[in-house]
Amino acid sequence: MPIMIYLAGPDVFLPNAIEVGRQKMAICQEFGFEGLFPVDNDLGVEADAAAIFRANCAQMKRADVGVFNLSPFRGPSADAGTVFELGFLFSQNRPVYGYSNAPGSYITRVPTAGPLPKRGERGVDRDGLAVENFGLTDNLMIVEAIRASGGAIAFAPREGNAFASPALETIPAFRACLEIVRQRFH
Amino acid sequence: MPIMIYLAGPDVFLPNAIEVGRQKMAICQEFGFEGLFPVDNDLGVEADAAAIFRANCAQMKRADVGVFNLSPFRGPSADAGTVFELGFLFSQNRPVYGYSNAPGSYITRVPTAGPLPKRGERGVDRDGLAVENFGLTDNLMIVEAIRASGGAIAFAPREGNAFASPALETIPAFRACLEIVRQRFH
Repeated sequence: MPIMIYLAGPDVFLPNAIEVGRQKMAICQEFGFEGLFPVDNDLGVEADAAAIFRANCAQMKRADVGVFNLSPFRGPSADAGTVFELGFLFSQNRPVYGYSNAPGSYITRVPTAGPLPKRGERGVDRDGLAVENFGLTDNLMIVEAIRASGGAIAFAPREGNAFASPALETIPAFRACLEIVRQRFH
Repeated sequence: MPIMIYLAGPDVFLPNAIEVGRQKMAICQEFGFEGLFPVDNDLGVEADAAAIFRANCAQMKRADVGVFNLSPFRGPSADAGTVFELGFLFSQNRPVYGYSNAPGSYITRVPTAGPLPKRGERGVDRDGLAVENFGLTDNLMIVEAIRASGGAIAFAPREGNAFASPALETIPAFRACLEIVRQRFH
């Protein structure tokens, strides 16, 4: 039985989501894994939100490992549904890994009041709210969960125009992540 | 022993985070609960991200119920750390509840291409990415997890200027949420 990997990410919102899902599952096979893709798009817009939720939870429970597309989505952090699933799988004691097209630290993506503070100095956004400044690429709960599970985050800047949305061009980072997973499990 | 409630939310980033935490814990007591607040701010900016992560996970494991401030944070969705914790506690079979100062559906907070689609019709943002359009207030994984656990989300628009950041003024919604929790558990 190959190791089964849950492939979380906002890829499901791409106009060519099914194609991207197939591509990522094929890459999993190349690496000797079986990819499990969330079902949001297969069910279409008429599907019941509750049915999609249950199907994704069932897929997660089948998985041995979680691999998460943490590319920033509609803000400085990863997609909310993806982060929910990270918390879910971490809590189920699965090793979790991430990949992203944004290697910079979180604070560089939040418009701050005044100049960018040095690492460890207090950062404040334009609404007066504190900005985490640990040099991490996203909220500490995300990054530290991945570390605590023995996982890692792979980065590769987006390149070319392979997808309709360059913002979600993540194949190079995805491959780099699977290479790390392979070193641990094969 | 009172029921212990983990109080997740971006409140930890408020300039008066400790005061807000104390206020929400006092409201928990009013309702006969014990509130557990995340520790991000108590540890200060010099604290280790890994230590904060471990402390928050330990608090979550002590909790009987999770109550989540899902107010939109730096984008159309809830705060990423909060959503991670929602996935974690849901996966631990705890009943989870939400409250928010934004009662509108998710799609109303995402700038869409063209006019706002009707419920159930396909929504697309300005980058060509699909926007969930189930009439839910956030990503379906968030809302459906709360429903599946038997929880609910309470809304109250922000009012006045009680906090430094009006965007996180959530006391009325928080009280409404605790009232729902009390009806279930007391």
